[in-house]
Amino acid sequence: MSPFIAEIIGTAILILLGNGVVANVLLNKTNGKDGGWIVITWGWGIAVFVAVFTMGQFSGAHINPAVTVGLAMAGLFEWSLVPAYIVAQIIGGVLGAFLVWLSYKDHFHETRDESLILACHSTIPNIRNYPANFMTETIGTLLLVFGVLYLASPGFIGANGELLETIVIDGNEVGFGLGALSALPVGLLVLGIGLSLGGPTGYAINPARDLGPRIAHALLPISNKGSSDWAYSWVPVAAPIAGGFLAAGLYLLLSS
Amino acid sequence: MSPFIAEIIGTAILILLGNGVVANVLLNKTNGKDGGWIVITWGWGIAVFVAVFTMGQFSGAHINPAVTVGLAMAGLFEWSLVPAYIVAQIIGGVLGAFLVWLSYKDHFHETRDESLILACHSTIPNIRNYPANFMTETIGTLLLVFGVLYLASPGFIGANGELLETIVIDGNEVGFGLGALSALPVGLLVLGIGLSLGGPTGYAINPARDLGPRIAHALLPISNKGSSDWAYSWVPVAAPIAGGFLAAGLYLLLSS
Amino acid sequence: MSPFIAEIIGTAILILLGNGVVANVLLNKTNGKDGGWIVITWGWGIAVFVAVFTMGQFSGAHINPAVTVGLAMAGLFEWSLVPAYIVAQIIGGVLGAFLVWLSYKDHFHETRDESLILACHSTIPNIRNYPANFMTETIGTLLLVFGVLYLASPGFIGANGELLETIVIDGNEVGFGLGALSALPVGLLVLGIGLSLGGPTGYAINPARDLGPRIAHALLPISNKGSSDWAYSWVPVAAPIAGGFLAAGLYLLLSS
Amino acid sequence: MSPFIAEIIGTAILILLGNGVVANVLLNKTNGKDGGWIVITWGWGIAVFVAVFTMGQFSGAHINPAVTVGLAMAGLFEWSLVPAYIVAQIIGGVLGAFLVWLSYKDHFHETRDESLILACHSTIPNIRNYPANFMTETIGTLLLVFGVLYLASPGFIGANGELLETIVIDGNEVGFGLGALSALPVGLLVLGIGLSLGGPTGYAINPARDLGPRIAHALLPISNKGSSDWAYSWVPVAAPIAGGFLAAGLYLLLSS
Repeated sequence: MSPFIAEIIGTAILILLGNGVVANVLLNKTNGKDGGWIVITWGWGIAVFVAVFTMGQFSGAHINPAVTVGLAMAGLFEWSLVPAYIVAQIIGGVLGAFLVWLSYKDHFHETRDESLILACHSTIPNIRNYPANFMTETIGTLLLVFGVLYLASPGFIGANGELLETIVIDGNEVGFGLGALSALPVGLLVLGIGLSLGGPTGYAINPARDLGPRIAHALLPISNKGSSDWAYSWVPVAAPIAGGFLAAGLYLLLSS
Repeated sequence: MSPFIAEIIGTAILILLGNGVVANVLLNKTNGKDGGWIVITWGWGIAVFVAVFTMGQFSGAHINPAVTVGLAMAGLFEWSLVPAYIVAQIIGGVLGAFLVWLSYKDHFHETRDESLILACHSTIPNIRNYPANFMTETIGTLLLVFGVLYLASPGFIGANGELLETIVIDGNEVGFGLGALSALPVGLLVLGIGLSLGGPTGYAINPARDLGPRIAHALLPISNKGSSDWAYSWVPVAAPIAGGFLAAGLYLLLSS
Repeated sequence: MSPFIAEIIGTAILILLGNGVVANVLLNKTNGKDGGWIVITWGWGIAVFVAVFTMGQFSGAHINPAVTVGLAMAGLFEWSLVPAYIVAQIIGGVLGAFLVWLSYKDHFHETRDESLILACHSTIPNIRNYPANFMTETIGTLLLVFGVLYLASPGFIGANGELLETIVIDGNEVGFGLGALSALPVGLLVLGIGLSLGGPTGYAINPARDLGPRIAHALLPISNKGSSDWAYSWVPVAAPIAGGFLAAGLYLLLSS
Repeated sequence: MSPFIAEIIGTAILILLGNGVVANVLLNKTNGKDGGWIVITWGWGIAVFVAVFTMGQFSGAHINPAVTVGLAMAGLFEWSLVPAYIVAQIIGGVLGAFLVWLSYKDHFHETRDESLILACHSTIPNIRNYPANFMTETIGTLLLVFGVLYLASPGFIGANGELLETIVIDGNEVGFGLGALSALPVGLLVLGIGLSLGGPTGYAINPARDLGPRIAHALLPISNKGSSDWAYSWVPVAAPIAGGFLAAGLYLLLSS
């Protein structure tokens, strides 16, 4: 399977399960209605787990532009492939949001609150303050990419086993990512970031996770939908990229 | 142990723990009363885990006709054994529901709401709309079987270790399934599907899980029971089969 | 370390964490007050996990007379050691309850409801009906010991690795138990039994878990305590033993 | 990477995720508000997991003076390094608390209750009774360090694999700690201690976890903050050290 297809599918699975759990908790007449933060955070953690254990072997399951950029900056992934990976991830995000809408169509129809419907797609800060929101998203993504670097870097593989191989395209080794053995650790890492740092901004920590579904929100004929809140949309794109850079910088500093 | 016996026991364990947790949360005077969606979804996830880690070594622990059909269509299981596996799974489903009734007998007696009693057996859509319900069940099962294919297929084993062997009947290798090493991943996969996609229809995603207990509901002298809702019963049978076919088709397309 | 000491410590850890979580949820002025069934069942699951991963290497971490009896009946443990193991387990149960009392002493003092205080020690059926309660406890323990047999039996080890060795006393191999590799599976198994089958009787599924703390309840000068409910005490002792026998019988039947 | 830097980073991660989840549950206008004890305990469990899987390979991820002291007393870590490890851990605790404040700054501002703000930094006993609080913290830490000793000791490594190596400084092997393979077990152990023994005092079980953030609370210009409650501060420092000593003593006694 092409790594680009794998990134599309992996990110689509991430969003189908991730935004799916938000829909289950927020929309009306669902079984998970008002299931609470423990339901949402476990849903996202397992979403990452499933995406990585199925697609990791094909593309390294970055499924997040901040991870792709962080790996590239750390010298663990080819810069020339970064744009294609990011495009694939955003396409996957749109596709995943479309599948959530198919799964919960009647429940969107039963829900009148526009902000709940947007929240089933993209993140919304609880206290709108762009610098503060940017800070929170940056710290969360810094921790995510920092953890991923220790799961994906050659040093970690050396210690851990043979499962995690480099990603190969046309016979060339293009870099590292996450494989089946890393699926549970990275899923739990995202569970932890959600539990602990998701309070203020809903932990986008992934530009494709936020932008892809926001595009879907703008395009799809969803019942009762309101504004796609494009004014906020740059924060969950730019801050995770900043966090990814900081994580790679810290990783390089500590490895030197 | 015969694989058919293993499928009966595995599916019975699945339903005993799976419908058991529903009974604990829905019936009156239980410790788990109103424990919420996090209790129900973890209960089903662990149900799958236990069935797979105990019976996986004997039958591949399909415990789900959609998995059996998906594996067969993907060329990973003998078509000739599919009918016997499905019959065993449905028998296991009836048996599991019988054990739930034995475990919670007095609590069924203390519960007057007929729909709660049916929900301890089979799924009920929150918004009855057969095409939409069919769509939701199809997407959920597609994801389940797609994940199982990567856990069970030879390519995945090659990377992962020697534990997962082919199922052998009378000295012949008849195909693949799930073994002890896959028990936790597939349990977490079902946890995730429940958390994220169980909102509209209660995630049957398994014809034997729904039909077996519905037969038990019709036959057993359960206190305060009402209709077995046969009008809906075809959806959680046909949609998971459709999802299994779609998953196998996608898997073959991506592997080609 | 002597296996008998290991069984005492293992069972004490089981009860310290297991009854500790009940105290946290039921007693007044605690952080976990009214934390719900998900808190209680995870607490017991992790209690088993910790006891097995620490003591498994020394005694096989049976920490439950029903497991010891089931293993012996299945031919996997020396009958001659069964009495000493059971005595050690009950001593561990008393010790664990004492440690819970030390940990929560002021909170027992702040709680007036005698049944809550007893529930921090031993199980209480929600609907008192001895034959029905016996049935529920038997089914739960059957599943527990059945699962343990597949985790502990040589056949399972053969497939899984070298960690799980036989228990050795004075140079003699005396049988099987659970080791570090089995700690998570058996912890999750108990989590599942609690979630799904703990509704009617609070899932003793272990004579030492119920009898040991009941003895402690009778002996310790606990604030506001009432009756130790000895009338019910035979059910959570006899039913788990019955379940252990049934599991071993089923295991032998299926292995023949 | 220097082990001292690794202890600073590891403890900072522990506090960022650990106190972060407290902030999410206690402060106003967060997504996790009133998420309950299950959210808090999972947050701390994953916090330990992430700190150990990232930093374990560099310093053994003690991230807790009670663990460092317990390992030293058990003969598994150089006494001469204990002071530097402890200083690093406390620095990490201050740093982690600073990052929580950065992440939740506006939410501190929206919260008026001084005790909630302190609780996002350090533990507060629910029933203030120093001897009883000391007892509870000692028992919790005893169990923590006892478990860590079996995860970190050479005997356990011998059985389990090659991942866990001794910590090396300037070419000298200075002792043991936790590696990537131990990250999940120790995270679940802390989850269990929180669920079961965190009711009375909020389970500091780690002097650096309590003292570091208390220093940050005293120094940072946090909105609406009140007293740093130095009167209680010795309990969550001294009791965990006592628990660590007791655990090492018990470990040595059982190993003799």
